[in-house]
Amino acid sequence: MRHCDLLIKAEWCVPVDGSRAILEDHAVAVADGRIVAVVPVAEADRDFQPSRTVDRPGHVLMPGLVNTHSHAAMTLFRGFGDDMALEPWLTQKIWPAEQRWLGPEFVRDGTALAIAEMLLSGVTCFADQYFFPEIVAGTAVDLHIRAVVGTPVIDFETEWARDVHEYLEKSADLVHDAYVDHPLVTSAFAPHSTAALTDDAFIELRVMADQLDIPIQIHLHETETEIENALAATGMRPLDRLGNLGLVNRSLLAVHAVHMTDAEVELLAESGVSVAHCPRSNLKLASGIAPVARYRDAGVNVAIGTDGAASNNVLDMLLEMQTASLLAKAAGRNAEALGAFDSLSMATIGGARALGLERVTGSIAVGKWADLACVDLRALNSQPVYDPVSTLVYAAKSSQVSDVWVAGRQQVEDGNLTEIDVAGIAGRANEWSRQIRSDLG
Amino acid sequence: MRHCDLLIKAEWCVPVDGSRAILEDHAVAVADGRIVAVVPVAEADRDFQPSRTVDRPGHVLMPGLVNTHSHAAMTLFRGFGDDMALEPWLTQKIWPAEQRWLGPEFVRDGTALAIAEMLLSGVTCFADQYFFPEIVAGTAVDLHIRAVVGTPVIDFETEWARDVHEYLEKSADLVHDAYVDHPLVTSAFAPHSTAALTDDAFIELRVMADQLDIPIQIHLHETETEIENALAATGMRPLDRLGNLGLVNRSLLAVHAVHMTDAEVELLAESGVSVAHCPRSNLKLASGIAPVARYRDAGVNVAIGTDGAASNNVLDMLLEMQTASLLAKAAGRNAEALGAFDSLSMATIGGARALGLERVTGSIAVGKWADLACVDLRALNSQPVYDPVSTLVYAAKSSQVSDVWVAGRQQVEDGNLTEIDVAGIAGRANEWSRQIRSDLG
Repeated sequence: MRHCDLLIKAEWCVPVDGSRAILEDHAVAVADGRIVAVVPVAEADRDFQPSRTVDRPGHVLMPGLVNTHSHAAMTLFRGFGDDMALEPWLTQKIWPAEQRWLGPEFVRDGTALAIAEMLLSGVTCFADQYFFPEIVAGTAVDLHIRAVVGTPVIDFETEWARDVHEYLEKSADLVHDAYVDHPLVTSAFAPHSTAALTDDAFIELRVMADQLDIPIQIHLHETETEIENALAATGMRPLDRLGNLGLVNRSLLAVHAVHMTDAEVELLAESGVSVAHCPRSNLKLASGIAPVARYRDAGVNVAIGTDGAASNNVLDMLLEMQTASLLAKAAGRNAEALGAFDSLSMATIGGARALGLERVTGSIAVGKWADLACVDLRALNSQPVYDPVSTLVYAAKSSQVSDVWVAGRQQVEDGNLTEIDVAGIAGRANEWSRQIRSDLG
Repeated sequence: MRHCDLLIKAEWCVPVDGSRAILEDHAVAVADGRIVAVVPVAEADRDFQPSRTVDRPGHVLMPGLVNTHSHAAMTLFRGFGDDMALEPWLTQKIWPAEQRWLGPEFVRDGTALAIAEMLLSGVTCFADQYFFPEIVAGTAVDLHIRAVVGTPVIDFETEWARDVHEYLEKSADLVHDAYVDHPLVTSAFAPHSTAALTDDAFIELRVMADQLDIPIQIHLHETETEIENALAATGMRPLDRLGNLGLVNRSLLAVHAVHMTDAEVELLAESGVSVAHCPRSNLKLASGIAPVARYRDAGVNVAIGTDGAASNNVLDMLLEMQTASLLAKAAGRNAEALGAFDSLSMATIGGARALGLERVTGSIAVGKWADLACVDLRALNSQPVYDPVSTLVYAAKSSQVSDVWVAGRQQVEDGNLTEIDVAGIAGRANEWSRQIRSDLG
């Protein structure tokens, strides 16, 4: 008999381990935060002596979901200026509010709200882009979720830094260096968009990214306006400009990537660039529909992200998966496009790959961290079950997420957060919204 | 002091009564199943002596949602053949299963599952189209939900009837006549599509519809293929053919209406035809995106429907509202298109109007039946709240529906069904799926 800390038995287990397997009545054994076995229940009972056993009939166990794009702190702006065009929304709502309120406390409270919401909906890893990234990293560690902390790099002064040089320096010091070898936190550079940096700034960024081996994530070809403005300002489309600057390679995560020519799709595939597809944000902001089926046919790794709650308005990766599949069918006029398993794969191992974490998370495989989510399919809205993956993607709701483990630690049990002070988080979010409302209407 | 049976106090009340009002700290008084007052809480406390008071801080009270298109019994086929093209899905999955299993028991069990799911997500009225409509009507009454029971009218034999004549006769006898003046059930004729009836059949249908004043609902211009096939077979587009047959008027509900020319949009507006928009079904089946903004600009009444769970896969009108808004923005490349209130209005009073029930349900107004739903906005995923309607449409989930009343009777309390045997319904659904799977894989 082998000892393990935890044995999770589920009616269905979907490892997303390169196969399309749906394992029935299997168990996942966890020791020291890592997966040590994925075996039939009978074998687990014979071979393992667990400290704790969790039995989940009618549930599907899947890899924890990977949210590859968010601005977690902006969850405090959820619903603040919906149904507005981008420009008035930014200039009348978001920017004035950020100018007035942005600071470490705002980032801590907003990020905590986002993390709590994400854990409750089965997310075990998220990539973020926002100011005060050292606060994002600290909050992720405090609340025990895996995070790829994108540090802002722009060419103008904000509350957090004065110029590109300082953005890069603080990014390296406060996030990258501070979390070297941390089991939960890694860092990424997050230049906002090509419009936000000069060529010199990008070159400085590239040098430091190469030196420290830090990946880069950037909003890219999100809207047609972005591309038109870039053409007018530089004579180049944003992707071309990044290419000239030596930044189009497998360290790059292209966020949104809604508008790409066939040649650009090929370039992304050849260069090993990943795409973070944010379908609900793209719909709500009327950005367009990303050519996900074309990306996948060309061999581009596509991941899924929620974007910030200011433009979504929920950080719900189950809903995002579902929308990805529905939208790909409509856009391609093909009901067979992007099936349930494809979206689940994008939201798990595809996300891990996009963030350079495919060796540590994103699938249920021996040796990886036990980043896991269990979903109860017994709710009426997901009955009956013909195919549990189909049910998971097209019928299950985040309220059915029963259990979530991050690196083996149980963060959600029976649909509730085990360690996080929900009332405190909600109270602080309300206090912020009261202040913002009284200040800006 | 006036007596009332029930006084519901909510932090926000959205009556959708022609205004765009969001009433704060108001109460709705209910007597004999009907709304007798909508007043500030202080006034309600002064004027009413209720048998029961329900107090809902942090909740929004809205009209019960109206699902204008479903095939409730097909909920037993939820997830049975996802990600398939229409033709193989029908010929390899749905039709063989219907041929083998269709009957009163199947319809009762599937409809019960659908009704339970709909009540739990805030639906108080649904329009249905399926075989054995007398069973649908009986189940709606048993489980106490408002229903517009569409009776099938087609030109070929099924388990339920032999020919158009018998379809019409059974429709009139078993549904229309049997439920005359029933407080919950009305009937409609539901010819499946123009392809399913000869001109003579349509004429017979029209005569009986006129005689008995029964409205008509039909799948119309759902796919381009439907239109092409009609052109090939009759030389006419389906809407033109219906027009020639004298059926294009305010008794007609055009279901889906995805593909319409500008002239057709005008015709629908002038004729007072309503549209049942089913955004998630249209995406999943790759039918296209209905021009909802154009309909509304032209003055067409647009309602919302889920379609059957075999092609959705949930009967969740909150999700459907949200998708309607998101999709209209993307399709119109306009982030201001179809705001949250517009979708809420389509899903409530717009639905009631489409079903000819605007005098009895669809808004919170004195004299109407107390068909109401209350949603708890205090979940983390809907915090903070800047605008409760925006939060309701873009962030709330059906799991947050706390209370539902149909004609004043409380069917959902604290998120649970009060009267309906959930375990029995789920058990029977599973039994059906087991049989269908073993029979058809």
